[in-house]
Amino acid sequence: MADKKLVEAITSMETDFAQWYTDVVKKAELIDYTSVKGCMVIKPAGYALWENIQKQLDSMFKENGVENVYLPMFIPESLLQKEKDHVEGFAPEVAWVTHGGLNPLQERLCVRPTSETLFCDFYKNEVHSYRDLPKVYNQWCSVVRWEKETRPFLRSREFLWQEGHTVHATAEEAEERTIRMLNIYAKFCEEYLAIPVIKGRKTEKEKFAGAEATYTIEALMHDGKALQSGTSHNFGDGFAKAFEIQYTDKDNTLKYVHQTSWGLSTRLIGGIIMVHGDDSGLVLPPRIAPTQIMIIPIQQHKEGVLEKAEELAGMLHNFRVKVDSTDKSPGWKFSEQEMRGIPIRVEIGPKDIEAGKCIICRRDTREKIEVSFSELESKAAEVLETMQTDMLERARAHREAHTYTAADFEEFVKIFEEKTGFVKAMWCGEQACEDEIKEKLAVTSRCMPFEQEKIGDTCVCCGKPAKKMVYWGKAY
Amino acid sequence: MADKKLVEAITSMETDFAQWYTDVVKKAELIDYTSVKGCMVIKPAGYALWENIQKQLDSMFKENGVENVYLPMFIPESLLQKEKDHVEGFAPEVAWVTHGGLNPLQERLCVRPTSETLFCDFYKNEVHSYRDLPKVYNQWCSVVRWEKETRPFLRSREFLWQEGHTVHATAEEAEERTIRMLNIYAKFCEEYLAIPVIKGRKTEKEKFAGAEATYTIEALMHDGKALQSGTSHNFGDGFAKAFEIQYTDKDNTLKYVHQTSWGLSTRLIGGIIMVHGDDSGLVLPPRIAPTQIMIIPIQQHKEGVLEKAEELAGMLHNFRVKVDSTDKSPGWKFSEQEMRGIPIRVEIGPKDIEAGKCIICRRDTREKIEVSFSELESKAAEVLETMQTDMLERARAHREAHTYTAADFEEFVKIFEEKTGFVKAMWCGEQACEDEIKEKLAVTSRCMPFEQEKIGDTCVCCGKPAKKMVYWGKAY
Repeated sequence: MADKKLVEAITSMETDFAQWYTDVVKKAELIDYTSVKGCMVIKPAGYALWENIQKQLDSMFKENGVENVYLPMFIPESLLQKEKDHVEGFAPEVAWVTHGGLNPLQERLCVRPTSETLFCDFYKNEVHSYRDLPKVYNQWCSVVRWEKETRPFLRSREFLWQEGHTVHATAEEAEERTIRMLNIYAKFCEEYLAIPVIKGRKTEKEKFAGAEATYTIEALMHDGKALQSGTSHNFGDGFAKAFEIQYTDKDNTLKYVHQTSWGLSTRLIGGIIMVHGDDSGLVLPPRIAPTQIMIIPIQQHKEGVLEKAEELAGMLHNFRVKVDSTDKSPGWKFSEQEMRGIPIRVEIGPKDIEAGKCIICRRDTREKIEVSFSELESKAAEVLETMQTDMLERARAHREAHTYTAADFEEFVKIFEEKTGFVKAMWCGEQACEDEIKEKLAVTSRCMPFEQEKIGDTCVCCGKPAKKMVYWGKAY
Repeated sequence: MADKKLVEAITSMETDFAQWYTDVVKKAELIDYTSVKGCMVIKPAGYALWENIQKQLDSMFKENGVENVYLPMFIPESLLQKEKDHVEGFAPEVAWVTHGGLNPLQERLCVRPTSETLFCDFYKNEVHSYRDLPKVYNQWCSVVRWEKETRPFLRSREFLWQEGHTVHATAEEAEERTIRMLNIYAKFCEEYLAIPVIKGRKTEKEKFAGAEATYTIEALMHDGKALQSGTSHNFGDGFAKAFEIQYTDKDNTLKYVHQTSWGLSTRLIGGIIMVHGDDSGLVLPPRIAPTQIMIIPIQQHKEGVLEKAEELAGMLHNFRVKVDSTDKSPGWKFSEQEMRGIPIRVEIGPKDIEAGKCIICRRDTREKIEVSFSELESKAAEVLETMQTDMLERARAHREAHTYTAADFEEFVKIFEEKTGFVKAMWCGEQACEDEIKEKLAVTSRCMPFEQEKIGDTCVCCGKPAKKMVYWGKAY
């Protein structure tokens, strides 16, 4: 039996989802607060998740021709201002460095909120001929956005991410790269994080500052709110014109390059928590879990128990396995490993040793399976694989159960009064309707999904002829 | 034959070592300059080196119980000021953030020059009982020091590094960790970067701001100047007292923790360049080279040549191998791969294919070896291994040849007038002598080596009884 005390230390999801989230990030030891308002410490359990995300995503990037680089964390004010829409979008929320050492700076520098302008400044000197194209660069770094309201992982003043920035000869190639990276994000979320996502395009109102088109993957959290989980932007030649990035083409004429950028951040850790977690804490998808199997010895003071636990760990060396040999009670250890979301717990005590078997307990379903030592490795592999698949299917079913369709405004209002989830509704394409919907219902357009369904002919808001089916929702 | 043009684009080492260095970092495409004064772009070839350093060092850390975390990049001014020596050392060279978004901050924040104060603030809340100890945390991040004179990798306003910060119950354990990490740095430099280092302790004058003891690894560059390549600090309980970090010990009394920190940075890439490079460019140690083998097809337009080159790449898939199939001339490709320091070049042309063989060319010695296709893989492995060993031995021999001994001041002066290198000399232990030596000879004490040799009885400066043998040198 798991110890109740640790579980009681967190609010239940039903009672207060926001408080449950805050309790879990603390009790699962993912983060800690700091003296720096709005910034957090990412503790070992949290950072190990990010390392696994990085490792997998970076290898997918490299298979797709991405090279890593590192650009400065500072942007001179004059550089930030070069692209009009971009500076309007970001200037209000950047941190400004005004002094270096004891002296005031001649020009103030902002701490990068994103690095389009720096990459443009770099590419301007780097790209001269069609031979220099494409450049498909990425950097792993932290960025700063001076948010007023902050929440661990979801919105903090500094966060970790990767930002890819590419330059291409043609518009087609830039579009291909934009979509390719979005597909990589979607594949990564579904296959590794067990988070199903809706792929689509952002409306003009919701797109990135300076982009021609922004594509997004949107996930539905357990509470029915949406999480924008990764975005990929096609800039066309807008930045190229602002920064004068030109190349000599094969036909010997000067042409502007076409650019893209795409990013995914530690915010996704918030997504893992809110899609899979339960009232006992985290539930981690096996493929991304820093520890996949925790072996918990029962009556470990008895002869041979700890030795056997270590022996089992040896048998499971193909997995990320640990033995919890601390002097806490087994019940407390069970609770702790549940709180941390470890996919499999293996229980092993004197009676099990006598019987030549142990017990596997699955974190998500709590199903207990008795296995002989000789079957342990294959059974563990099977359980981890099944759990990974089940978690994705469960998340998908939850999303389906919380996705609604609204034919007219009345229905639209009624759904959001009673429920939280994705609502599919037709839209005329005018920002006025988006603004009105946001004002009246406090929901935003999440995306115009690639998989369009014609669920009606008229805009859910104004009743004029509809152009697109849109996913609407409350968002983090 | 390698093309001369690219080689001619760099200054020779003999003519002007500093200019050679600057030329190489640019021509080998490791970095680019930016609009942000004193900050650089680390380009793919440079960043891939850092990724390999990270990967290896991180795995050595993890084998030694280190866990990764991430702390904020900002430090509130009041926090930086808590430890007196530390703030005196760093305040004059930090960048200050004074505005967040459109508003002035209530308290200004510095961009971390190092994170002792943040870790202390974190540990203060994290550590309560002896059960919470030790904590052996590390972070990979960038830091900022507002240097006046900057040089790529060696001294830039922002640089990448890792900083480990640990807390321990006892002074002995802290000392053990300090030395253990120094040994890991030394092992890493010698075994992976082929850079021999002198391990030792810094004098009081040269130690880290706030440390009780600073240990260092010092390497000798090709021009005879020293590079401090990694440092490990024992703080005793100084920071613990300033930050009130106490724990309840088994005997139920409150005790201060003992702390360490240790760091190694992208500066080491400068070390690789200056220890191993030659007049044709970079020479990369095989174990750390992002590309270990570059296959260069000769007359690649002829039938079967490119196919064979790709086939050889397949045979060499256990190495980091690439084929240069660009439309440049073979001579130009040779020069380019030499400039980039690729350890092995494989030449393959129509005649070679006919004869069932190819040519391996070693970057450091330029030795050419004819090998049959069937022997290629084993020969490549052998050459890479030999090259790694030879590079370390050559660097060690160079250091030995540029290490001198001075018995008295006259000799000391004479050596530094005529030569550049390490000079071993006895020292009384007084800072006055260090100051005098620095003023008159423009050299600093590099370290008091662990391997002490009694080369005299009296201080090389004042003639009083000597306490320690010290390595002296000009340093980067």
